[in-house]
Amino acid sequence: MSAPLRKPAPRAPGTETAVTTPGDREIRTERVFDAPRERVWRAYTDPGLVAQWWGRGNPVDVERLEVERGGHWRFVEHGPDGTTYGFEGRFREVTPPERLVQTFEWDGMPGYVAVDTTTFEDLGDGRTRIVVTALFHTREERDGMLESGMETGLNDSYEALDRLLAGQA
Amino acid sequence: MSAPLRKPAPRAPGTETAVTTPGDREIRTERVFDAPRERVWRAYTDPGLVAQWWGRGNPVDVERLEVERGGHWRFVEHGPDGTTYGFEGRFREVTPPERLVQTFEWDGMPGYVAVDTTTFEDLGDGRTRIVVTALFHTREERDGMLESGMETGLNDSYEALDRLLAGQA
Repeated sequence: MSAPLRKPAPRAPGTETAVTTPGDREIRTERVFDAPRERVWRAYTDPGLVAQWWGRGNPVDVERLEVERGGHWRFVEHGPDGTTYGFEGRFREVTPPERLVQTFEWDGMPGYVAVDTTTFEDLGDGRTRIVVTALFHTREERDGMLESGMETGLNDSYEALDRLLAGQA
Repeated sequence: MSAPLRKPAPRAPGTETAVTTPGDREIRTERVFDAPRERVWRAYTDPGLVAQWWGRGNPVDVERLEVERGGHWRFVEHGPDGTTYGFEGRFREVTPPERLVQTFEWDGMPGYVAVDTTTFEDLGDGRTRIVVTALFHTREERDGMLESGMETGLNDSYEALDRLLAGQA
């Protein structure tokens, strides 16, 4: 009935998020950020900075963020209609500023646990490549995540992270 | 150099724990208890009762045991030399008195999460069969659990549970 009023804004070259499924139980995402690795690492591990991008514009309570092996994390995102979305997990490995391995669980599906391995690669030109590999217990859980609107949510989060990183002089 | 002073006591018929590996990432254990299902269910879900058998004679602090979907559990076992062993997880499914699905993680290997499905089968003669299927993210994690002395520990726990169930008139 109605023509689109405007097209989505084109992304800056190199900032597309590449989502692939290297195995039956995995999702791999890759994204380049225009900021040095140490700054990107801080955006992932400083509670005050995480709160500024993780919720894609929604307020986030960073209830726990114990960035050490065995430490727990828990974030609660507040949606525009008052709904809250809780996420939590535990760190398996913390190797600054290169690598985080942590579990990931959404309150809405408690006990369904993915293991996220995040690597921060210094591209040598002031940019950083982030690769996340998520491993699920079953293929069905992996497919459920893919069908949940994950890619849109991830792109929204990464764009909020772009804005945060651009603003940190 | 020395002959064993005594042989292990023979187990009562039907109370051996059967441990099998139905898949690359699974461990299945099966054990019959000489008590009605409701009583066995309580021994698994009442904090005061759990503390009496889970530690195989070692004291156990049941720090959390929220037996409901999404609830957390955390037990800390105190070994004889003062060492503590923490375990925790979250309930995916609670269907009294038939079925519990929960995650399982040991503090010593944080972020390595198995999903334990426990079924309580009423054998109709006052006995209850418990079957636990543990699903791991990788075969290596599964094999690590098998090599950890799990079977001995499990038998010790189940024998402590036998004693608890026999004492509850």
